[in-house]
Amino acid sequence: MVGRGKEDLPEITQLGNQGTKYSFEYDPGVLETFENNHPTRDYFVKFNTPEFTTLCPITGQPDFATVYISYIPDVKMVESKSLKLYLFSFRNHGDFHEDAMNIIVNDLVELMDPRYIEVWGKFTPRGGISIDPYVNYGKPGTKYEKMAEQRLLYHDMYPETITNR
Amino acid sequence: MVGRGKEDLPEITQLGNQGTKYSFEYDPGVLETFENNHPTRDYFVKFNTPEFTTLCPITGQPDFATVYISYIPDVKMVESKSLKLYLFSFRNHGDFHEDAMNIIVNDLVELMDPRYIEVWGKFTPRGGISIDPYVNYGKPGTKYEKMAEQRLLYHDMYPETITNR
Amino acid sequence: MVGRGKEDLPEITQLGNQGTKYSFEYDPGVLETFENNHPTRDYFVKFNTPEFTTLCPITGQPDFATVYISYIPDVKMVESKSLKLYLFSFRNHGDFHEDAMNIIVNDLVELMDPRYIEVWGKFTPRGGISIDPYVNYGKPGTKYEKMAEQRLLYHDMYPETITNR
Amino acid sequence: MVGRGKEDLPEITQLGNQGTKYSFEYDPGVLETFENNHPTRDYFVKFNTPEFTTLCPITGQPDFATVYISYIPDVKMVESKSLKLYLFSFRNHGDFHEDAMNIIVNDLVELMDPRYIEVWGKFTPRGGISIDPYVNYGKPGTKYEKMAEQRLLYHDMYPETITNR
Amino acid sequence: MVGRGKEDLPEITQLGNQGTKYSFEYDPGVLETFENNHPTRDYFVKFNTPEFTTLCPITGQPDFATVYISYIPDVKMVESKSLKLYLFSFRNHGDFHEDAMNIIVNDLVELMDPRYIEVWGKFTPRGGISIDPYVNYGKPGTKYEKMAEQRLLYHDMYPETITNR
Amino acid sequence: MVGRGKEDLPEITQLGNQGTKYSFEYDPGVLETFENNHPTRDYFVKFNTPEFTTLCPITGQPDFATVYISYIPDVKMVESKSLKLYLFSFRNHGDFHEDAMNIIVNDLVELMDPRYIEVWGKFTPRGGISIDPYVNYGKPGTKYEKMAEQRLLYHDMYPETITNR
Amino acid sequence: MVGRGKEDLPEITQLGNQGTKYSFEYDPGVLETFENNHPTRDYFVKFNTPEFTTLCPITGQPDFATVYISYIPDVKMVESKSLKLYLFSFRNHGDFHEDAMNIIVNDLVELMDPRYIEVWGKFTPRGGISIDPYVNYGKPGTKYEKMAEQRLLYHDMYPETITNR
Amino acid sequence: MVGRGKEDLPEITQLGNQGTKYSFEYDPGVLETFENNHPTRDYFVKFNTPEFTTLCPITGQPDFATVYISYIPDVKMVESKSLKLYLFSFRNHGDFHEDAMNIIVNDLVELMDPRYIEVWGKFTPRGGISIDPYVNYGKPGTKYEKMAEQRLLYHDMYPETITNR
Amino acid sequence: MVGRGKEDLPEITQLGNQGTKYSFEYDPGVLETFENNHPTRDYFVKFNTPEFTTLCPITGQPDFATVYISYIPDVKMVESKSLKLYLFSFRNHGDFHEDAMNIIVNDLVELMDPRYIEVWGKFTPRGGISIDPYVNYGKPGTKYEKMAEQRLLYHDMYPETITNR
Amino acid sequence: MVGRGKEDLPEITQLGNQGTKYSFEYDPGVLETFENNHPTRDYFVKFNTPEFTTLCPITGQPDFATVYISYIPDVKMVESKSLKLYLFSFRNHGDFHEDAMNIIVNDLVELMDPRYIEVWGKFTPRGGISIDPYVNYGKPGTKYEKMAEQRLLYHDMYPETITNR
Ligand SMILES: [Ca+2]
Ligand SMILES: [Ca+2]
Ligand SMILES: [Ca+2]
Ligand SMILES: [Ca+2]
Ligand SMILES: [Ca+2]
Ligand SMILES: [Ca+2]
Ligand SMILES: [Ca+2]
Ligand SMILES: [Ca+2]
Ligand SMILES: [Ca+2]
Ligand SMILES: [Ca+2]
Ligand SMILES: [Ca+2]
Ligand SMILES: [Ca+2]
Ligand SMILES: [Ca+2]
Ligand SMILES: [Ca+2]
Ligand SMILES: [Ca+2]
Ligand SMILES: [Ca+2]
Repeated sequence: MVGRGKEDLPEITQLGNQGTKYSFEYDPGVLETFENNHPTRDYFVKFNTPEFTTLCPITGQPDFATVYISYIPDVKMVESKSLKLYLFSFRNHGDFHEDAMNIIVNDLVELMDPRYIEVWGKFTPRGGISIDPYVNYGKPGTKYEKMAEQRLLYHDMYPETITNR
Repeated sequence: MVGRGKEDLPEITQLGNQGTKYSFEYDPGVLETFENNHPTRDYFVKFNTPEFTTLCPITGQPDFATVYISYIPDVKMVESKSLKLYLFSFRNHGDFHEDAMNIIVNDLVELMDPRYIEVWGKFTPRGGISIDPYVNYGKPGTKYEKMAEQRLLYHDMYPETITNR
Repeated sequence: MVGRGKEDLPEITQLGNQGTKYSFEYDPGVLETFENNHPTRDYFVKFNTPEFTTLCPITGQPDFATVYISYIPDVKMVESKSLKLYLFSFRNHGDFHEDAMNIIVNDLVELMDPRYIEVWGKFTPRGGISIDPYVNYGKPGTKYEKMAEQRLLYHDMYPETITNR
Repeated sequence: MVGRGKEDLPEITQLGNQGTKYSFEYDPGVLETFENNHPTRDYFVKFNTPEFTTLCPITGQPDFATVYISYIPDVKMVESKSLKLYLFSFRNHGDFHEDAMNIIVNDLVELMDPRYIEVWGKFTPRGGISIDPYVNYGKPGTKYEKMAEQRLLYHDMYPETITNR
Repeated sequence: MVGRGKEDLPEITQLGNQGTKYSFEYDPGVLETFENNHPTRDYFVKFNTPEFTTLCPITGQPDFATVYISYIPDVKMVESKSLKLYLFSFRNHGDFHEDAMNIIVNDLVELMDPRYIEVWGKFTPRGGISIDPYVNYGKPGTKYEKMAEQRLLYHDMYPETITNR
Repeated sequence: MVGRGKEDLPEITQLGNQGTKYSFEYDPGVLETFENNHPTRDYFVKFNTPEFTTLCPITGQPDFATVYISYIPDVKMVESKSLKLYLFSFRNHGDFHEDAMNIIVNDLVELMDPRYIEVWGKFTPRGGISIDPYVNYGKPGTKYEKMAEQRLLYHDMYPETITNR
Repeated sequence: MVGRGKEDLPEITQLGNQGTKYSFEYDPGVLETFENNHPTRDYFVKFNTPEFTTLCPITGQPDFATVYISYIPDVKMVESKSLKLYLFSFRNHGDFHEDAMNIIVNDLVELMDPRYIEVWGKFTPRGGISIDPYVNYGKPGTKYEKMAEQRLLYHDMYPETITNR
Repeated sequence: MVGRGKEDLPEITQLGNQGTKYSFEYDPGVLETFENNHPTRDYFVKFNTPEFTTLCPITGQPDFATVYISYIPDVKMVESKSLKLYLFSFRNHGDFHEDAMNIIVNDLVELMDPRYIEVWGKFTPRGGISIDPYVNYGKPGTKYEKMAEQRLLYHDMYPETITNR
Repeated sequence: MVGRGKEDLPEITQLGNQGTKYSFEYDPGVLETFENNHPTRDYFVKFNTPEFTTLCPITGQPDFATVYISYIPDVKMVESKSLKLYLFSFRNHGDFHEDAMNIIVNDLVELMDPRYIEVWGKFTPRGGISIDPYVNYGKPGTKYEKMAEQRLLYHDMYPETITNR
Repeated sequence: MVGRGKEDLPEITQLGNQGTKYSFEYDPGVLETFENNHPTRDYFVKFNTPEFTTLCPITGQPDFATVYISYIPDVKMVESKSLKLYLFSFRNHGDFHEDAMNIIVNDLVELMDPRYIEVWGKFTPRGGISIDPYVNYGKPGTKYEKMAEQRLLYHDMYPETITNR
């Protein structure tokens, strides 16, 4: 039998839940996982999250980004609705763009202990300049650590065309 | 003489068949193959299938994806009309996005025993997040197994721009 | 002498102000105006604001839109930094998409008494559907009232292509 | 006071509801409305629904379309989650493309009695040809009836470029 | 009861027919119609046909075009599979681009007696120049005749960007 | 009988001619016509010519443009290969952009006596500025003269985005 | 004889001039004209100038815009190199976006006395908002005055998609 | 002296030939070559051929593709007009997409004995699925054989977005 | 505790400062840094700066570019508002495009002593040609020096399409 | 002191020169160089030249291409205005596309003795086929020779989409 149903996923509490609470405080505790059904295989899962917003720690003004999160699961996988709530918790929170992307990597590594993960934030401009931090991680002492190094080596050799419009 | 005609392909029953039946039950049994005429050569065949739809196993709501399937044939090749019927059989069926892509790889490996295969699903967003699983496979113990590892290593270093519009 | 300097604009308090405060409460009171230097001419000013976010009044989940505001000034013109603060004040506030766009028109009419104004919000999808309300207004009893009617008549006859990606 | 909350909308039963049921039978009865808060104003609301799918009544094969629905409300407005459920109910249902778009107009006119409405379906190709029906309606005996005629007169004078890829 | 099934459409012989014959001779006789179920309403149906090919009557070389056909039905509607066969019949046939588009209009008027129809062919370049004929028609003595005149008056005021690549 | 063959077009000497001579002198005399087979109908023919080049009369440097030519034929129609030779004859010739577009209109009016014609040149930039002249013409004393006036009135209200890249 | 050479244009001093001086002071005096050779015809000339920059009068920070200038000449036409020098003279100059576009219209009307002119500036964002003023003018008491009014009435009904990236 | 003229190319019989005959039978014999003038250098030549059409061997329906052919010449190079005639000869011929691309490689290898060659066909969809075969070849026993293997290893890791529209 | 506030960043003087002074003299002294909070990790930060302008040292005419700056920080990181002021200081300054990009690399290496940095300038055309210099640097004697060499080796193998429009 | 002025560049005679002469004869002698100020560093300079035109040596008809030239300088660098004059000298000259690109490489190697250079010409189609030659070169006996080989190995694995429109 392929596939899995609701009854197989008691640990998933947010997906399909009517009473979802959105926390306005930065809160990695909302993240939930489910089990990887294909652990003998290395494969990628990517989340496209174009609705990320936070506040500038110096000026208090809102910042917006599209954040791309891509990982190779080991035993645990992050559930997407809980990931949404986690990202929401940056909404009224202040951080430098570079720090925010590092924190997301740290939290997801802590949560899932993935084989490999990378996070790329592409922010909208302030004063004519936009900032795009890219952070990655491979499990130390494994081939995935080398993978992280290799992907950083060839990262973004074709910067997308930016016109600020 | 180049090319082949209807009479050379008795094993193809769906292509050009007026009475096609669409199964609403997940059914890998509808898949059909024909013989590879160029087995001494390594080459790629890609299917672009932007009309894939399934159901969320938790909420029952419909999910939509474009699925890209690419493989190097060995002896057998999947016939495209039967592939269409197979993908149709997910229509009223529920699975996590990550599981569905793994299952398609498993079924096509079982069917064709290809040298190499990869499947990339790009789903539409729910709650502002979209999920794109990528799964690949190379025949164990061959150079294609290394090929799979190498392609995973450099997978998707340029995530496409996603705006949810 | 063309142009105008800081000293000509004492009523502008937000632009260039280091101590900007961002209100998390819906607050039309932050809006500021400056005088139209070309009142004998009918001309358009458009604001492109792709960083609009609010909350769903029913589910509390965040909503995102690009809002296009276009108007023909009469005596007063809205200053763009104060407009930014005003739009920010919807950040933690809940409204139906259709209501939010009507409210923005009402507030800007109240503020500037423009000859003509229109507001078009283009939201990101929820559950596969996105909503784009368009509201316009022409000063009652003037030719601009007819202008509003005429522009509504021919509004959006070429809907942009939407794929949710 | 601007905006409205959950308590003001008892007639909305689907939005935010955990136990949503998706009907596989064509069912206009799932449609729900809420009251227009700005009835003195003519304004447009557009729904972009790129996840519409139905079945061919002759061959049984799946059809896919992006459907654009745009209307000027009178007293009632259609709630978007219920619209989603309604469109879902075409999933296992068969109709000619031209008929499906006419039916959607008929059902939404029956539901909301809008001042004006238009529906444009853009289907994916079969055999190298795609079909895009466009249907509109203005309340008979009003200026909106003329509006419908006028919009049809100038409909789609710039067909989008189609390459089937 | 909405929709219609196979049994309601005995006059449709090509759609879903396994034994389709493609005629290499120009043949308007393959065109088939079905009845318009919504004759009290004026609405548009558009066919996008990017796979049109014919031969140059002078040089014999192949020509390729995307042809856009858009019409308001009266009593009869052209069935899309038969339209495909009709367009196929130009495959080994020679005509000037301008003549071919006029012929398609003539044949479809003869077939369906539509209220309004227009055909726009966009050909690929020869020697650095491409040709795009646009032909329309409104039923003589009706408002649709004026419609045709009006649409021609405002035809293609924004020529698409062509680079020949 | 539809279509026409080589034997019906003795006046066409350039199309399909192996010994084509390209004149480097501005030469409207190379233009050839053939007869309009559908003179009772008003219809448009457009030529897309992205390979137009001339010389600056002041600096001698080369200029490049894409030229769009669109007309409603009366009795005569311009043959496209001869049009190509005519446009080629500007290659080593000097003119202001604005004059060149007027001259093309004048020559084609002289040649074909069309009901309506328009020519739009879109040049590449020099020193950061590009120039796009648009010239049109309707047969004096006919409704096409009014058509020209009307099309000029609404010309290019949506200038294409230009970045010089 | 078509075209004109250097000797016919003694009033043009900047085009092809090696010793061009760029004025850093706002200076409409650098503008030069040449005579319209086709004064009996109404036609459009458009300048695309994506390299416009100025300073904010309040903060001193640089602003950037693409400015589209489009006009129907009467007797005089603006020479493009002198237009470039004129636009350059805004480089170290401060003005509100709305004022700058009005000033350009005023200066070009003063210079050329055109039948019709319009100027559309599309600026890059500051703080997530961009401003696009559009100003037009028709010679008072002529049909071009009505043309200006008509073009304003239907101005920019399809705002371009802005993402700030 | 650089370049070469007609007199240096007696073996080229199709290019510039008025009496070109288009064969409707698959015919690799129409292919012609000329000599590589730069044989000491490895370099690529690519042909973009978006006007390829053939017939389905099972259903007889027309298929369309854009075919990209790219090679490193050795002594002989294929002449482009003869390549056009060769590709034309598939027009009324039936083959599976995968076979057609292999046959083109075989024929061009036979003709030119190139160091390296690859052919990528991108077909339009049938029933919602499109097929893109990619075949390459390097001269056996040379470094180009390894080149072929290496290019296959990294082939198409970024599938283009396909929407079927 | 994640994130950092104003009080943690006393060395940042420009960000959020009302009295920003823009220097018209080339001035690397305006650059400011803050400390890297994640020094044990290699990660990329990219700045997109589409609003770069300078003067041609020979002709004095303005030049415009989009400059992409991407680096792996070591101990210090450049603050983006100070980077903006630094880039502004090229505004009235003259340099060859190739020199300007080298100078930016030199100044940022001097400022931050980064592990790796690269700068790519994409200028608008003059006389039909645009110039895009790309300069990179890796800390000598480290693996980042090899990284620079490797990235140069594979730099820009897919030049973006340039049309000068 | 950074940058360099006119006085430092006596060898540059074309840039900023009012009396530029355009040679209609193929003439590599017009090329000029200036000295590389950063010779200790390997870096790329790219020229985008979308305004290249030549004549077909067989038919005499004009050909058009966008040519991309990219190189790593050693001691000398080509000045862009002289490059423009050089490319202009192909205007009335005939060559096969493949030869023209090889000749440009040869001439620039002869002129600058660069470490590495590559030239990619992308021509417009004739008879539905376009040709894109790519030629590169690394200084023999250096690591740049291997670089050339490596870049050829991975050249153009993602052919751009070509539609001939
Ligand atoms: Ca969404
Ligand atoms: Ca998008
Ligand atoms: Ca969605
Ligand atoms: Ca989209
Ligand atoms: Ca097609
Ligand atoms: Ca061509
Ligand atoms: Ca194009
Ligand atoms: Ca330029
Ligand atoms: Ca552009
Ligand atoms: Ca900004
Ligand atoms: Ca953009
Ligand atoms: Ca299809
Ligand atoms: Ca497409
Ligand atoms: Ca240029
Ligand atoms: Ca471009
Ligand atoms: Ca194209």
